[in-house]
Amino acid sequence: MELRLPPRISPTDFQRATAAFANVVGQEWLMVTDEDREAYSDTYAPGPKEQWPPSGAVAPGTVEEVQAIVRLANEHRVPLWPVSRGKNLGYGASAPRLPGAMVLDMGRMNKVLELDEKLAYCVVEPGVSFFDLYDHIQREKAALWTSVPGNGWGSVLGNALDHGIGYTPYGLHARNLCGMEVITPTGELVRTGMGAMDNNPAWHLFPFGYGPTWELAFTQSNLGVVTKAGLWLQPAPETSLQLTWDIPNEEDIGWVMDTIAPMKISGLIEQNVFIPSWLGKIVLKGQRKDFWDKPGAIPEWRVQELLTEHKLGYWQVQIRLYGDEAVNKAKAEVIKSAMARHLATPPLEEWWRQGDPVNQYDTTMGVPSAVALQMGDWIGGAGAHMGFSPVVPATSEHVLGQLKRSRKIIADYDTDFYASFTIGGRFANNINMLMFDRTDAAQVETMKALFNTLIRESAAAGYGEYRTHLGWMDPVMDTFNFNDHSLRAMNEKIKDALDPNGIIAPGKQGVWPAAYRDMAGARA
Amino acid sequence: MELRLPPRISPTDFQRATAAFANVVGQEWLMVTDEDREAYSDTYAPGPKEQWPPSGAVAPGTVEEVQAIVRLANEHRVPLWPVSRGKNLGYGASAPRLPGAMVLDMGRMNKVLELDEKLAYCVVEPGVSFFDLYDHIQREKAALWTSVPGNGWGSVLGNALDHGIGYTPYGLHARNLCGMEVITPTGELVRTGMGAMDNNPAWHLFPFGYGPTWELAFTQSNLGVVTKAGLWLQPAPETSLQLTWDIPNEEDIGWVMDTIAPMKISGLIEQNVFIPSWLGKIVLKGQRKDFWDKPGAIPEWRVQELLTEHKLGYWQVQIRLYGDEAVNKAKAEVIKSAMARHLATPPLEEWWRQGDPVNQYDTTMGVPSAVALQMGDWIGGAGAHMGFSPVVPATSEHVLGQLKRSRKIIADYDTDFYASFTIGGRFANNINMLMFDRTDAAQVETMKALFNTLIRESAAAGYGEYRTHLGWMDPVMDTFNFNDHSLRAMNEKIKDALDPNGIIAPGKQGVWPAAYRDMAGARA
Repeated sequence: MELRLPPRISPTDFQRATAAFANVVGQEWLMVTDEDREAYSDTYAPGPKEQWPPSGAVAPGTVEEVQAIVRLANEHRVPLWPVSRGKNLGYGASAPRLPGAMVLDMGRMNKVLELDEKLAYCVVEPGVSFFDLYDHIQREKAALWTSVPGNGWGSVLGNALDHGIGYTPYGLHARNLCGMEVITPTGELVRTGMGAMDNNPAWHLFPFGYGPTWELAFTQSNLGVVTKAGLWLQPAPETSLQLTWDIPNEEDIGWVMDTIAPMKISGLIEQNVFIPSWLGKIVLKGQRKDFWDKPGAIPEWRVQELLTEHKLGYWQVQIRLYGDEAVNKAKAEVIKSAMARHLATPPLEEWWRQGDPVNQYDTTMGVPSAVALQMGDWIGGAGAHMGFSPVVPATSEHVLGQLKRSRKIIADYDTDFYASFTIGGRFANNINMLMFDRTDAAQVETMKALFNTLIRESAAAGYGEYRTHLGWMDPVMDTFNFNDHSLRAMNEKIKDALDPNGIIAPGKQGVWPAAYRDMAGARA
Repeated sequence: MELRLPPRISPTDFQRATAAFANVVGQEWLMVTDEDREAYSDTYAPGPKEQWPPSGAVAPGTVEEVQAIVRLANEHRVPLWPVSRGKNLGYGASAPRLPGAMVLDMGRMNKVLELDEKLAYCVVEPGVSFFDLYDHIQREKAALWTSVPGNGWGSVLGNALDHGIGYTPYGLHARNLCGMEVITPTGELVRTGMGAMDNNPAWHLFPFGYGPTWELAFTQSNLGVVTKAGLWLQPAPETSLQLTWDIPNEEDIGWVMDTIAPMKISGLIEQNVFIPSWLGKIVLKGQRKDFWDKPGAIPEWRVQELLTEHKLGYWQVQIRLYGDEAVNKAKAEVIKSAMARHLATPPLEEWWRQGDPVNQYDTTMGVPSAVALQMGDWIGGAGAHMGFSPVVPATSEHVLGQLKRSRKIIADYDTDFYASFTIGGRFANNINMLMFDRTDAAQVETMKALFNTLIRESAAAGYGEYRTHLGWMDPVMDTFNFNDHSLRAMNEKIKDALDPNGIIAPGKQGVWPAAYRDMAGARA
């Protein structure tokens, strides 16, 4: 990928800046060749990767080096786009929102700095992947479980910072963050919460600060570069029981939601319950062409055939319980009798007890997996995906309403429908996975038009996305329109105060610093 | 109380400002007489209330009136000190940190705006007390329980904003906040989280924003005036079981912590477990003079006598379980067998089932109470109390260490020892209640010296307070010393950006705006 300079930076300026960066990290950790830029681009980009081009990347190895790079970036006016491991696939990978920004690759800082079995937490640097953390815990023989997203390739910290979700009792990953170290956009080193006191042992235990609490203000945020953070982990349970039901019909998601959400809200179910539609199961059995070889969405009659052939429900519900055996048994009785009011078939019951092998790749047991990536092969070609992810209240009314809306829009664009609902408490994350061949220009154009329509129509009905791809960060922020976008105005006032040169991640989630605000997308 | 003008404000300026305020709220809601100032002063102040004098108070009745007052305060440079109901007893009640600030009394805005039984949340204005919310829920016959602090007099929202704690599964009140409406210091109306989109039904359900999440930045904060917020409530359980143990010896708190905290962390125990020392029980039986009539701390031999006479343990542990009967039974077996490893005496077991009357004043069942106020009568005279409240990791090592430290310091000052530990997860809030007669100058001086020593010595060992009285907001902030107080510097940079005139709550928790920074306490 050719060099795209940062805005208002001449080739000489850029050379000077990168020479200064190299001086800090060493030449080998400055990456500014065409191949380097290719490597840091969005491999799942809808359309040409050149839409979100980095000018290069720099990879510091220590907190001091990060600090030095941030200060130099201010001096040379080179905007940085921090990524942890750059594996945010479907949302932009490591590519920057602002063309020509330099990727600040935190991947070299990949140490698990603390692991405390008794108090069940770890302290991680941004480069630690879910696989790394899992392996570390196994090596230490600590009785702790992680909570992982679909794809364990990515960064533990980066995922939490981007509001990623998992399928365990610790599934709202951002809510497990406790105590951060952050470099502010002007290069000051700050610690949040109890960590603002030297050697305070409650830094990663107590979730508030004395005064304002900042952890969540640094999530989906461009207010600083997080260099380490505490993360709560789940104590390994004595036993675990999984109950699995196939749910026959599309509209059954209504009673499923009204049955499970109250048990999640009451705490009887601790886990985030993931409910994928059939396509989520069939992608593991082959490619699209094995099941339907024509363009356009798989027709309804063929879907019904496939469900019968492969003994699949339209939805699958899996609920996992964790803890003492007698407690799990008692909970399972409550859940089974609630489900039995709607579905005669009893669930498949699978017990795990301490000492048993853990199912490989079972995300509900916190085992990292890359199985979800198989989805990329469904379409064939340069398979890619984007997720349309509105948040809906966890009731049948809202869930069926949103399902009907997105179902119709996706059908109008003649595209395969693959939805999931993850019940995270009083709400569900509805992820509509849109799969496409990114080298097929027509498919890409369809996908973009479809995505725009989904955002617009859902917002008109009052539903917002919880995260989105680089290309839609501005349009989605634009849907948060209360009082003439007053929250965005507040975000940008704080941004300008902490980042007068607009150096850190300009445009992240639609928040732009004054220096580059003219480069934001159109604003309502 | 005589008029103390705001800094740099002449009597004429003040008259002009208050006339403008009265124009907005009506003369009756402007309170600037000596009696008014008395009413808004700190009734539990250590020493003369005149140390924290308000210039008066203004009580808006609507969001628009709050907005107008904030704008006028900017125009007239009159700093405001927002209070919800002003019942933050022991921490300053409604008195301002900055002498002469005007109290912004939000108490008139006291509506429960929404109550949703199915999704288990409410939306409250700042003036709603715990009693109000409880009564509202009873009237609506909603199957929901609240989480209340020791004293139910205060504001539900104010308590959560100040990091108050309760003794239910929802005991970390600030973590139940979801979706706020805030007036920024310059008068803009902002909604956080999903509420930043018009009519988004997930506003009070999904705990993150698109982009940075702000709720907790508005807690213990002077970055805005919260005009309403969503608060998650506990679904009423089918049954509840309380287990009570008297724990004989002081040092037993070590094994108690190591036994209970792991069950709290694993989720087996959902509730915040409150463990008071014997004095917390005996204050309910009479005044100090009924048990010991000499000055100075009650001697150890008399304490032992009292424990025997009144059949009290040094500590009391009460664990309450909530939910399905069979689940609670199974959980109780696990807890009882863990406790039995250290204590032969079985617990008292008390079942509650839906339909049973709820124990009056039982804070563990979310019933608001004012019983805790009886503590004020312990000493006699103008009884007052202050809480020294460090946060400690929930392990015997840390708990015994801090207990020994504060125990010795309090003994050195010849003062009664009353401590409690509330296990909130991986940490415990250790509250050391210091009771005194605020009209006794010698007692007050002792109390202040004692408090200073507790803060200094605990900070030297690495422990920080989670909140404190007005008079110690600066000294406690000073103990958060990492990297030359870089978190305070960040707080103040953001404060100055959002509040250029320093109008909202200057000095709150030791965060000062530029306009009044010269009035902060001495800084290390």
